[in-house]
Amino acid sequence: MSPRDPVRVEWAPEAAVEFSGSSQKQAGAGKPAVALTADASGAGRAAAATTQAILERRRKHVGPNLALFFQEEPLHIVRGQGCELFDPEGNCYLDCINNVSHVGHAHPGVAAAVSTQLFTLNTNSRYLHEAYVEYAEAMAALCPDPLQVLYMLTSGSEANDLAWRIACAAAAAANPDDSRPLHVAVVDHAYHGHTSLCIDLSPYKWKGPGGGGRPAYVHVLPCPDVYRGQHLDGAAGARAAIAEAEAAGGRIAAFFSESILSCGGQVLLPLGYLEGVYQEMRAAGAVCVADEVQCGFGRVGRTFWAFELQGVVPDIVTFGKPCGNGWPMAGLITSPRLAEAFSAPGMEFFATGGGCTAAPTCGLAVLAAIREERLQDNAASVGAYCLRRLHQLQAQHPDVIGDVRGEGLMIGIEMITDPQSKAHSPALARHLKLRCKADHRVLLSSEGPFASVIKVKPPICFTEQQADRMVDAMAAVLAALAPEDKACLAEASRAEVQAVSERHARLW
Amino acid sequence: MSPRDPVRVEWAPEAAVEFSGSSQKQAGAGKPAVALTADASGAGRAAAATTQAILERRRKHVGPNLALFFQEEPLHIVRGQGCELFDPEGNCYLDCINNVSHVGHAHPGVAAAVSTQLFTLNTNSRYLHEAYVEYAEAMAALCPDPLQVLYMLTSGSEANDLAWRIACAAAAAANPDDSRPLHVAVVDHAYHGHTSLCIDLSPYKWKGPGGGGRPAYVHVLPCPDVYRGQHLDGAAGARAAIAEAEAAGGRIAAFFSESILSCGGQVLLPLGYLEGVYQEMRAAGAVCVADEVQCGFGRVGRTFWAFELQGVVPDIVTFGKPCGNGWPMAGLITSPRLAEAFSAPGMEFFATGGGCTAAPTCGLAVLAAIREERLQDNAASVGAYCLRRLHQLQAQHPDVIGDVRGEGLMIGIEMITDPQSKAHSPALARHLKLRCKADHRVLLSSEGPFASVIKVKPPICFTEQQADRMVDAMAAVLAALAPEDKACLAEASRAEVQAVSERHARLW
Repeated sequence: MSPRDPVRVEWAPEAAVEFSGSSQKQAGAGKPAVALTADASGAGRAAAATTQAILERRRKHVGPNLALFFQEEPLHIVRGQGCELFDPEGNCYLDCINNVSHVGHAHPGVAAAVSTQLFTLNTNSRYLHEAYVEYAEAMAALCPDPLQVLYMLTSGSEANDLAWRIACAAAAAANPDDSRPLHVAVVDHAYHGHTSLCIDLSPYKWKGPGGGGRPAYVHVLPCPDVYRGQHLDGAAGARAAIAEAEAAGGRIAAFFSESILSCGGQVLLPLGYLEGVYQEMRAAGAVCVADEVQCGFGRVGRTFWAFELQGVVPDIVTFGKPCGNGWPMAGLITSPRLAEAFSAPGMEFFATGGGCTAAPTCGLAVLAAIREERLQDNAASVGAYCLRRLHQLQAQHPDVIGDVRGEGLMIGIEMITDPQSKAHSPALARHLKLRCKADHRVLLSSEGPFASVIKVKPPICFTEQQADRMVDAMAAVLAALAPEDKACLAEASRAEVQAVSERHARLW
Repeated sequence: MSPRDPVRVEWAPEAAVEFSGSSQKQAGAGKPAVALTADASGAGRAAAATTQAILERRRKHVGPNLALFFQEEPLHIVRGQGCELFDPEGNCYLDCINNVSHVGHAHPGVAAAVSTQLFTLNTNSRYLHEAYVEYAEAMAALCPDPLQVLYMLTSGSEANDLAWRIACAAAAAANPDDSRPLHVAVVDHAYHGHTSLCIDLSPYKWKGPGGGGRPAYVHVLPCPDVYRGQHLDGAAGARAAIAEAEAAGGRIAAFFSESILSCGGQVLLPLGYLEGVYQEMRAAGAVCVADEVQCGFGRVGRTFWAFELQGVVPDIVTFGKPCGNGWPMAGLITSPRLAEAFSAPGMEFFATGGGCTAAPTCGLAVLAAIREERLQDNAASVGAYCLRRLHQLQAQHPDVIGDVRGEGLMIGIEMITDPQSKAHSPALARHLKLRCKADHRVLLSSEGPFASVIKVKPPICFTEQQADRMVDAMAAVLAALAPEDKACLAEASRAEVQAVSERHARLW
C-alpha cells in the first residue's frame, strides 16, 4: 500500500458564511468557509527540514531524556496510513508496534469525525453534550456489570492515578476507623504511567535506570514467567504482598495489574491467575484495578478487554492509548458503589481536557471503526496467522527463539542465548530490531525485564501480507546469523543480564 | 454575531486515491478522498437529544462528582464561535470564563491545522518531526533565558506533576548527601491539578469540600489579599514556610505559585512579591515553579507570561489550558541545568500523548493566531476597557463591589456584604452568576476562598461590544437588587463564610 493523496484542510476567512435563523447569507461569493485542497508539496512542510537538522534542533530545545526510537539512527516520519509510516523520501516502514494508532494511522473516519467537531465545538465537560453521554453508554455496554460509571481523562497515567484516588476513597469508606496507612500491590516489572504516583506503582521505573528503589508503601507480586514455569500462583504472590504490607503497618487499598503484562515482556497470565489474586486482595479489603491501557479495545481478538480472558470482573478498568487513536484521551470505568465512595465526601472532580467535546466524539469514531471494519475479528485472525508463522520460525531457530506467545495482536517473541539455560538474550533482540529496521524497514521493539522479548502490537488493521513482511524480515535476519555471531550476542547478553540483575537487586 | 455555516468533514472511502511515486491513479472517478459538506441538520446530531434526556443519561453513566456549570439548570451547548456558545435552539450565550478556547471557540485556523495533521500523521514523539522542534523553538523564544528546554504533556496537572519530579531530581543533584525528605511550598487556596501529587499541592482541594487536610510535607504561604492589605510580604511568608519545613525535618525542594492566583480569587500579586519569595526559596535550595496554566499565553495583555509582570525568571514554567485551544496539551519549560539534573540519573521520560504530532502542530497554530490576530494586544486593550467599565459599575455600587482588579483579560470583581467590614459575599456572587446566565445569557463564574470573586477570563478575542454586553448584564442585575435583597444575601453570605472558615481551620 502507498499513502493516499495528501489533503490539507483550509479555512478561507474571506468566504465566511453568515448564518442566522433559517436565512443564510453568503458573504464570500459562494465559496465555502472551509475547503480541502490537495497538498501539492507531497509530504508537506515537514519535508523542508532535513532529518539531521531536526535532530540537532531537538537536542537543543527538547528534554534530553525524551528518548527516540532507534537513537543511533532515528526515523523522521512525515506521513502515516494504516500500519505504515513514511519518511520524507517516501520510504515505507511497516509499523508493528504502535498501539495508539489502534485502527490505523491517520484513520480518515476518525480524522473526519474529530475535524468536524473541532470546527463546531470543543469545550469542557461542565456543559451537557450528547457525545459524552453517548460515549459513556457505549463504554458501559462494553463492560460487565457493575462497571457502569465513566471518568474521562487525557492519559493512561492520569487514569491510573485517579484509580488510586478512588481506591483510597473506597478504603476510607469501607473501614473509616482503620487508621493504618494505605499501601498498594503491583506486579513486578509493571509500568502504569509517568505521574509521581504512577512512577511509584511502576517497578519498571523504580527498578530501571535512574530508579529510586521500592517505595515503602508499594508491595510487589513476582511476575509470572510461564515459559520458565516460575511464579505461576497468583494467590500465593498476593498473600505474600498482603503479609508484607501488614507487617509494615499498612493495609492494601488497591491491586493494579495489566491484564496482559506489556513491559513485563508480553506475558500472558496463567489461567486463573487474576482470579486467585483478586480473591486474596478483596478479602484484604483492596480494590482490583485492571490496567487495559495497552491491551484493551479488541487487541486480544477473542474479547474486547484482556481481563475477560481471565474470567474476572475488576473493580476499576483503566484505559488509554488505543481509545483515541492518537487523540490524547483515556479514562476509567468503575462501579456506582466506588464512584459514590469517591464522590460522597464532597470533593469535585474535574479534568480540563478529559471529556472535552472532541474526545468522546473521537472515542465514538474509534469504536465505530472497530465495529464497522470488524477489527477485533481481524486482530483475532491476523494474530493467529502471525502466531502460526512465528511458531514456524521458532521451529527453524529453536536455539534462539525460546517462546512465541500472544493473544490476538499482542504478541511476544522471547529471544534466548540457548534452549538449555533459557537465558535472556537482549543483544539478539536488539540486533533483530536494528536489522529489521535498517534492512527491511520493519519496526519492532523489545520489552521484558531484560528487553529480550520482541513485542508485536501493531494497529489492529494489520493484514496477513503485513504479517508476512514482518516475519520474513525476522527470518532473513536470523538466517544471516553465523554461529560465531550467535556466540558473540550470547556473550554480550550474559554481561547485560548480569548488570541489570544487579541493578534490580540494588533497587528493591 | 451568529455562528457561521456548520461544516462537516467527510471521508468518501469509495473515492480513495492511489498514490505511488510520481504517478497518481484516481480510484474513484475524480472524487476527492475527503470532502467538506454543509451540515444540513443545523446544530448537528447533538440537537436530536433533549437536554433533559442527556442529563438523565449523564447521571447514570458519568462520575457523580464531575460537576456541571449551573447544576440546577445546566446548559446544553452544541456550537461555539469566538466568545459565544449556542444551545440547540440557537440561543447565544456570551462566554466570559473559558480560558481554554483561548483564541476563540472552534477557531477555524486552529481547527484546519489540526484537521490536516490528523489526516496526515499523528504519532508519538519517539520519531523525529519538524512540528515538535519548531514548537520547542517557538516556546523557548517566548521565554527568558535560561528557560530553553521543553517537555510536552497532555494536561496542566501532568505538567505540575512533572515539575515536582524535576525539582526532586534537582534537589538530589544539588545536595546528594542531604537525606532529609523533600518538602514543598505553595500559596494558600492554590489549585495545581488533579493527580495525586497535585492534590497535595492544592490547598484549594485539601481544604475544600471532602478535603483530607494538609499533607505533612506541604507548607503554605498565606494568600496575599491586596484589597484587605493582608499577607503582602512574600519573603516573610517564604521564611515561615521554610522554617516550618525545617522544623519538621524536611527541606523544601520546590515552590509552586500561579503568577496571578486564579482559584485564590483572581489575585494580582503585590509588586515584588515573587521576587521576595524566590530569593528566600532559592537560598533554601528550592526550585521556583511558575504555574502559567491559567494566566499564560498573552491573557494578561502587557506580557506573554504573567510572571513577567513580577520581573522574575522562574526555574520551571508550566503551561496548559490555552496552549492547545482545546486540544489536550500542556508542557513545561525549564533550564538546560534542570533538564540535565532530571535526565542524568538515566530514567527515560515519555508521555504517549505529550507531543504527538498534532499537539505541536496545534500549538503552533494557536501561537500563529495570537500573533496574526494581535490577540495579546486585544487582551490588553479590551481588558483595560472592561476594567474602566467595571470601575464605573463599582462607583455605582460601592456597597457591594469591594474591588475590581485585573491584568488584561484576567479580571476579578470582589463582592462584599458592606464596605466597612469588607466581608465576602458568596451569596451575591452566586446571585449575579445565576441571573446573568438566566436573564442575559452571560456566563460568569466565581473564585476565591469563599467563592465571592466574580472571575472574567474569556477567550482573548473578546470584543468591547462583548464587554459591554457583560457589564450591562451585571449592571442590570445589581440595579434590580432592593435593599432587602442585599440584606438577605449578606446574611446568607455570613453563614456561608462562617461554615467555610470552620472547614478551613479543621483541614489545616
